[in-house]
Order: sequence, then structure tokens, then C-alpha cells
Amino acid sequence: MPTEFSIRRRVQFAETDMAGIMHFANYFRMMEEVEHAFFRSVGLSVSMQHDDIHVGWPRVSAGCEYFGPIRFEDEVELRLRVVRVGDKSFSYEVDFMVADKRVALGKTTSVCCAIEPTGMRAIQIPSALREKLNAK
Amino acid sequence: MPTEFSIRRRVQFAETDMAGIMHFANYFRMMEEVEHAFFRSVGLSVSMQHDDIHVGWPRVSAGCEYFGPIRFEDEVELRLRVVRVGDKSFSYEVDFMVADKRVALGKTTSVCCAIEPTGMRAIQIPSALREKLNAK
Amino acid sequence: MPTEFSIRRRVQFAETDMAGIMHFANYFRMMEEVEHAFFRSVGLSVSMQHDDIHVGWPRVSAGCEYFGPIRFEDEVELRLRVVRVGDKSFSYEVDFMVADKRVALGKTTSVCCAIEPTGMRAIQIPSALREKLNAK
Amino acid sequence: MPTEFSIRRRVQFAETDMAGIMHFANYFRMMEEVEHAFFRSVGLSVSMQHDDIHVGWPRVSAGCEYFGPIRFEDEVELRLRVVRVGDKSFSYEVDFMVADKRVALGKTTSVCCAIEPTGMRAIQIPSALREKLNAK
Repeated sequence: MPTEFSIRRRVQFAETDMAGIMHFANYFRMMEEVEHAFFRSVGLSVSMQHDDIHVGWPRVSAGCEYFGPIRFEDEVELRLRVVRVGDKSFSYEVDFMVADKRVALGKTTSVCCAIEPTGMRAIQIPSALREKLNAK
Repeated sequence: MPTEFSIRRRVQFAETDMAGIMHFANYFRMMEEVEHAFFRSVGLSVSMQHDDIHVGWPRVSAGCEYFGPIRFEDEVELRLRVVRVGDKSFSYEVDFMVADKRVALGKTTSVCCAIEPTGMRAIQIPSALREKLNAK
Repeated sequence: MPTEFSIRRRVQFAETDMAGIMHFANYFRMMEEVEHAFFRSVGLSVSMQHDDIHVGWPRVSAGCEYFGPIRFEDEVELRLRVVRVGDKSFSYEVDFMVADKRVALGKTTSVCCAIEPTGMRAIQIPSALREKLNAK
Repeated sequence: MPTEFSIRRRVQFAETDMAGIMHFANYFRMMEEVEHAFFRSVGLSVSMQHDDIHVGWPRVSAGCEYFGPIRFEDEVELRLRVVRVGDKSFSYEVDFMVADKRVALGKTTSVCCAIEPTGMRAIQIPSALREKLNAK
């Protein structure tokens, strides 16, 4: 059974553009907001120390389908659904709900990495983290 | 033969995040920048009057694959490639090049719409616009 | 006695920069967020019809003093204080509080305008709006 | 005689808001862009190693006065003027010019800091850096 998690938040003026609707790039910031709220809800952070490793989650892909506009002061419900916790990667989808109607669908995949002074290195998701991402 | 178009621009400080790299949502803003520069290069604007219609191009999908990080002060070459000019829609891809290496691939599809006081209505791409999008 | 109003919200990852702290321009977006929440709390919107006039509030000045950094996942309390409701203008200050310590002070002044197809025109703040801004 | 430096760049769609003009917070990002271009023009970076110190420039204040709107696709000339290089701080102003008319005036003051694992510490501006900031 997939893990689900949701938050609500209102669209801000600075997130609109001259077309009078939320700018399409801001959907990706919203996807990240619900993702990070989900991490916090299971006792994790997207930027944390774990067994002396600084673990981060750079993205390898992100996408969004837009079914209708989102407007200033709309209250958006962001419903995150974990779709896969792989060996080294983590994928989820987000339904963007306005007034109980789905107006967009976002998807993203991140890779678990050790953040080191010389760069980032993909690692297996530590089992303690994996459990938290799978079962809430 | 596909239409190709490119611009170069430097990554700004405000586009980075605490991971020290360009935030993943900002790639979508860059995709839009090269798209709009392309529109200007063929004598169009993404927000224009055409035969008494206010024509706009809301997106129906956008996606990006990330192959490696982009950093502060990197000079990014954005190579736009028109992949389809459909009946009502327009699709392109963008290669993100840093030091001649492709570090990301963006894709987006927009629908041609009449912007009216009551909302947006999909329309056939006017032939005068279609010609400019196809052949540069 | 000045009108006061506050909201709390968490700093998001996309608001940080490579220095590891919230980017200085994002304080201005936060100032606007508490302002708009204040408008809503008194039954107004920053973009509304009033007696057949489309009323808007373009800014004439904005400033911020920074006393210390704000970091990812900090919960910031934004305390708005109306400092002046003039004939045509509206000024407020915002205290940025993190863990009960003031880490920044924002100030802004906006002018009440009729938004017309040909542009914006400064008008006297309608009395019905003035009352709501003064007394909560 | 004050140091002056300027760049030009076009306003992007994502920088506009539903009022149809550039959002007021984005002026601060533009101020930073011309500042960093100025730093590069004298052989500096805002994030650099100097004599084994990681030097950064957190801001202590920023402000902007708005004289008129800036719109999508406007080409803005950003004219930076160094107004003070103090013992530990650096202040400049930016004129925002559109079609040779000044539409905004920005001001900011930053403090020279050593960025250390435990935080930031204000330091005297190293003389090699001071010379470059003063005389171009």
C-alpha cells in the first residue's frame, strides 16, 4: 500500500505571472515543499547526517502535467504518494488539488547520495532511512 | 530538419540553493527563457495580439532530466530544438550545455490559446505563427 | 495603537542559497505574504473590485535590515505592524522572529491605485478600505 | 570619483506577477546580478578564497524605491555605483534604467566576513580586495 501524505497551502502573489496564474516552474517548488514536509513527518530531513555520512537527495528527473490553472489565493492540497523506494533512488507523485479537483500531477525521482567535499556519490539508501520512507 | 536556436547565460547566486548547486526548479525558468528568446528571434512574442485574438501558450507538460549539477557562475548554453508543431500544440526540447557537456535535458509542450476575459480556449495555431515556429 | 498581525511559516529549501541561508531577496516575498494574510484577515484582497474600481497597491519603497541569518526549516514568525495609513498610501513594518529573536526588520510603502487598461492612477484610499486597514 | 559599472538584461516572464509588471522582490535579485558582474569585472567573486580565508559578503541592509513599473521583455540597464568601501562594509546603489529613464533606485550594504564552519565572522576588507572595489 503506498505511503500517502498531504499538506495545504495558499498560492502567493509572487508565485503568479502576468498571465494571472501560478507560473509553471513554481509547481516544482510546491512538489519539494510537500516532499520535505513528508520527510519531517517521518523524522528525517533532506539534508542530514546519518552514520557520519552527510546524506543528500539530488534529483535525476522531475516532471509535471498541467490540467488547469492555479490562481492567486487558491488553497492547494498537495497529496504526495511514494511510488518507489529503490536500491538507491526514491520516486513520488504529487496530486495538486484545488477545490477537490486535480489540476496537476507532478513526478520526481531522487538519488540517495553521500555529499562529500569533492562532490556527490550515489549510495544505497541506508536501511533506517528506507524503513521510514516506506512505512508511515 | 528541426529548428534549432541557442542562447548563453550565466547562473546567478539567487538560483543556487544550500546544496551549492542550481535549484532543480530553476531549470524550468531557463527553458522558458530560451523559448521566449526563440519566439523573439522569429518576430513573435509569447503574449501577443494576432488578428484581434490575444494569443497565449499555457503549458500542458514540462519535464527535466538531470545528468549533473550546474553551479554558480557557470555559463550555460541553452539549445532549443523544436520537436513538434501540432494542430494546436507546440513541443520543444532544451539541451543544457556546460563546457560542451550536456548536463540536463528539458522538454515541454504548450497549447495555443485565445486568452479571453472568461478564461482560456484552445485554438488552432494561426498559420502565420505556425510558419515562424517551423522555419527559422 | 498600531494594528498588529502575525503568521508563522517554515523556510523552504528553494529559498536558501549556496551560502546556506535564506536569500536576501526572499525576505521581501515573506513581507508580502504576511501583508496579504493581513488583508485577508480584515476581509480585503490586494487585488479587488471596490465600487467599480479595480484597486491595486503598487509599492513605492521597500527595505530590509538583516540582523542575522535565517536557515532552512527555521520557523519564522512574521509580525506585521501598520505604521501609517495616509491619504493615498499605506506603510507597514515586519519583524522577522526566529526562536523569539528578531533577525530582520522589513518596511514597505504602497500607494492605492485604480488599475485601468491604460495604466495605474493613484487614488485616495476608499474610506471603507481605510477603516479595515486601521482597526482590526 | 565613484566607481561605475553597468549591464543590460531583459525582463523574463517568470519575473512578472499577475499585476503584469516585474514583481518588487525581483529588483533585489537584479541588484545582486549587477553587483556580481561588477565583482567579476575586477577579478573577484562574491564567494572566494583569499589568503586561506573563505570570504563572503552577507548583507546588512537592502532597499529599493520604485518610480514606475518594469514590464515583460523590457531591456533594463543596471548602473551600479560604489558609494562607500568602509573598514568592513561595502555599499552601492543601482539605477534601474528603461529607455533612458530611471524607474527605480536600489541600495545595499554588505559586510565582509570570514565564512567558517561555525558561522560567519566580520573581518576587515583585505587590502587587495579593497583596491579592486575602489578603482576599476
